[in-house]
Amino acid sequence: MTIQGEQIIGHAIAKGSQGEVFGVDAATGQALQPAFGGASPADLERACALAEAAFDPYRETSLEERARFLEAIADEISGLGDELIERCCLESGLPRGRVEGERGRTMGQLRLFAGVLRDGGYLDARIDPALPDRQPLPRPDLRLRNVPLGPVAVFGASNFPLAFSVAGGDTASALAAGCPVVVKAHSAHPGTSELVGRAVAKAVQSSGMPEGTFSLLFAAERSIGEALVADPRIKAVGFTGSRGGGTALMKIAAARPEPIPVYAEMSSINPVLLFGGALRERGAEIGRAFVASLTLGAGQFCTNPGLVLAIEGEGLDAFLSAAEEALVASPAAVMLTPGIHSAYTKGVAAVEAHGSVATVAKGQAGETLRGQAALFQVSAADFAKAPELQEEMFGAASIVVTCRDAAEMAEVVRALEGQLTAALHIVAADHGDARSLLPLLERKAGRILVNGFGTGVEVAHAMVHGGPYPSTADGRSTSVGSKAIERFLRPVSYQSLPDALLPDALKDANPLGLWRRVDGRMTAPQG
Amino acid sequence: MTIQGEQIIGHAIAKGSQGEVFGVDAATGQALQPAFGGASPADLERACALAEAAFDPYRETSLEERARFLEAIADEISGLGDELIERCCLESGLPRGRVEGERGRTMGQLRLFAGVLRDGGYLDARIDPALPDRQPLPRPDLRLRNVPLGPVAVFGASNFPLAFSVAGGDTASALAAGCPVVVKAHSAHPGTSELVGRAVAKAVQSSGMPEGTFSLLFAAERSIGEALVADPRIKAVGFTGSRGGGTALMKIAAARPEPIPVYAEMSSINPVLLFGGALRERGAEIGRAFVASLTLGAGQFCTNPGLVLAIEGEGLDAFLSAAEEALVASPAAVMLTPGIHSAYTKGVAAVEAHGSVATVAKGQAGETLRGQAALFQVSAADFAKAPELQEEMFGAASIVVTCRDAAEMAEVVRALEGQLTAALHIVAADHGDARSLLPLLERKAGRILVNGFGTGVEVAHAMVHGGPYPSTADGRSTSVGSKAIERFLRPVSYQSLPDALLPDALKDANPLGLWRRVDGRMTAPQG
Repeated sequence: MTIQGEQIIGHAIAKGSQGEVFGVDAATGQALQPAFGGASPADLERACALAEAAFDPYRETSLEERARFLEAIADEISGLGDELIERCCLESGLPRGRVEGERGRTMGQLRLFAGVLRDGGYLDARIDPALPDRQPLPRPDLRLRNVPLGPVAVFGASNFPLAFSVAGGDTASALAAGCPVVVKAHSAHPGTSELVGRAVAKAVQSSGMPEGTFSLLFAAERSIGEALVADPRIKAVGFTGSRGGGTALMKIAAARPEPIPVYAEMSSINPVLLFGGALRERGAEIGRAFVASLTLGAGQFCTNPGLVLAIEGEGLDAFLSAAEEALVASPAAVMLTPGIHSAYTKGVAAVEAHGSVATVAKGQAGETLRGQAALFQVSAADFAKAPELQEEMFGAASIVVTCRDAAEMAEVVRALEGQLTAALHIVAADHGDARSLLPLLERKAGRILVNGFGTGVEVAHAMVHGGPYPSTADGRSTSVGSKAIERFLRPVSYQSLPDALLPDALKDANPLGLWRRVDGRMTAPQG
Repeated sequence: MTIQGEQIIGHAIAKGSQGEVFGVDAATGQALQPAFGGASPADLERACALAEAAFDPYRETSLEERARFLEAIADEISGLGDELIERCCLESGLPRGRVEGERGRTMGQLRLFAGVLRDGGYLDARIDPALPDRQPLPRPDLRLRNVPLGPVAVFGASNFPLAFSVAGGDTASALAAGCPVVVKAHSAHPGTSELVGRAVAKAVQSSGMPEGTFSLLFAAERSIGEALVADPRIKAVGFTGSRGGGTALMKIAAARPEPIPVYAEMSSINPVLLFGGALRERGAEIGRAFVASLTLGAGQFCTNPGLVLAIEGEGLDAFLSAAEEALVASPAAVMLTPGIHSAYTKGVAAVEAHGSVATVAKGQAGETLRGQAALFQVSAADFAKAPELQEEMFGAASIVVTCRDAAEMAEVVRALEGQLTAALHIVAADHGDARSLLPLLERKAGRILVNGFGTGVEVAHAMVHGGPYPSTADGRSTSVGSKAIERFLRPVSYQSLPDALLPDALKDANPLGLWRRVDGRMTAPQG
């Protein structure tokens, strides 16, 4: 067995000495062996010092070298084989198919960023050539490229033990940008984390990357994660988790002598808008698809459809009937951790007890630690008076808000907080209503989708997995897709540098073969 | 006379009722007529409500319409003629040539962003076409563009009454992005602000832009500016000023229920690095050019060379002699405000009294309110022990830190805070030393320049006027040049939208003729 309960600090793989963390069998709540030693302040100091020392040599590696390094991480993860899948299923309670899919996604993200590096467009290379004869003053030669911010702290997510954790999207995009990474493993899946951490560490060695390029710490106390964000060598933070956790990190980062960006993906209820025409044509069909999305992965997606806004009428009745039928047949599902199960159960109970809320249906009850799906209903007028109903119930629960018409639906949208996604179900007859709502939806959500649900988050160039606060800490960014690399970059301008001192991205001969903006115009590599 | 002491709230131009602000003749300290009425909380409320109401219609204007609007502002500013120049000279104490140049720069910025709009590259349009046959799951059609953040608060700067104030870089880039702007005028130049504000208001009307696209408030009390940043309808802040002022706004923005980005350009001492070879070849010449840069505009540039790091030797002696000779001949110069003059005088006196600092030379003393240039010297070892010597003296004062060799110079750089610029003076023989220092300089500064000084800030595509904290609040951005528009944007992803509902930037037929990333590859408009 490869899992030893050890953390990774550069090339040193050894047990931490400050407290212990145990994995937990999500289905039974029983602690799993071995114990994982927690990081001490000295361990944190060492990881940050190594990351700082690694930064300059790591960012000076070529685009191709970093691309191959990311691919080597993907290969090493693949090489972990069934041990990874089994441990991850055990720790997360997620079914094997989902975990295998998530592993594929994790490797896919690493390979996407290898492609981003080979393309080089993320450098935003620009050249404004000198104009020595310009009047009244000559223009100097000016060139610009993006450089990495510095070492990045990544916090593993409970709900994506692979794709948003040790070698997940935050780590992949930060490493691609040229930033060393210090990961604080999520305590919900320490065994999974150690396995993936070992894979990354192997790739660091086999690719000849500097020692401090990657470290992985377990933390038995909250203070270690807080100290990581406060460390002056850390220049940005990636986080996926609760609103409370994210805002706590934002506060620490803002209070530093040098404030740093926090990219926290926090809470979202992802409104689904059911328009009149679509409901009339296929209300029942949408109801079934909705329940499938709602209960996927026990509803533990950031993009889970936690809110439905629907126009009243026969179509909505058909939607509700079909949803009820599908929901009562939905088995209870193991949740990620006992803590998440408990919070979900409490959240559902509070909504159920709410005076203006009716229960549409509940899923099957299950053994202990299983989450029972639930669907509620409230009028738009009552929803407007109850902002507490906007709070995320992390799990397979949702609220249908019934609206008299599209105008009332717009009023409900206007009162919503920032969201990761907004989904519209429409037919051609609904286009007018949808069109007038789009500007408002653009202000509320990072992704707008039609006739689908947000639970599938494609890893692509045009993906935005991010949105206005509080869905994320910084709505100017995405944590999924190739644009995620931009979170860890800043521009530097070079004025009148001799060609020999310019970075390759900006040399006259364009040795990297980049697209560049020359005098503001996009110019092909051969141009 | 066009100056009436009136603020501008949408189409309403009228005197504020809460307190009074007076312009001051910078050369004499005498108050200028008329009085400017300060904004009340109700005025602020009205300006923010109008900006919010204007946001959706304003951002829906076409790229060409917004480009013409920016050009109309430039034309209106040009049409203000000599009244603007004379009032600006009076309020700022800046010479006519500088103010005329700054007016040209201000109009140039507006026209640059008109070009940015016509190019459309800032939208970062991306298309990942659907892959219906992909296994195991089909890929949906995904498209992405940038949208504006929402209404922006802009704080006028004392040191650029035109180029960083009412219609300056922050306003131009925010308006270009599609964000309505509420300006809080700087109390140092209210007359200049009103004139320019009227020019913008005329352009809003003649271009048919929504009423709330632009407002201009005077504030007799600090609380109005603070309330502007705290207003929930404001989604970003642009500021140029002191470190104290900038960090105060950052705190307010971070404490909002919905935190927002603050782009504050604050304090920088802009190290100038004099290498051994360059000093030997042309120490005296560099000394003269340095003093010219130091004393330009009474030293009141954000990029003023407030720190010189130089390798000891005969070349440095020649530099110091030439600098001394040039400095003692430098006339005292009127400073922007009595407050700035007083702070400068105190800052210089504190350095002069510092135990480890020697005075190299002082410029000519002048009448009251004139700043006297000053140059000091300290050893690298002593500088390292005195972090207080890194504090900006806003004005024509600088400190030469003498270093034994390039290694000691690197140690000094390592201990510096974030800077807007770093300038290297080198000859071919210095390339090796310069090359090894570049990675460190990239971490410390937003712009690196060779054989020049940072005081000229070109308005261009490859310019970065921004840098690591505390030179700016957010080192991922620039406040000068075409990239400044990125501060006021966020990406939105559109999944499976019918072509009829897509924004023009993302329609199949590419009606805007944009370069777009298709499947991650940069693709020409005809491609």
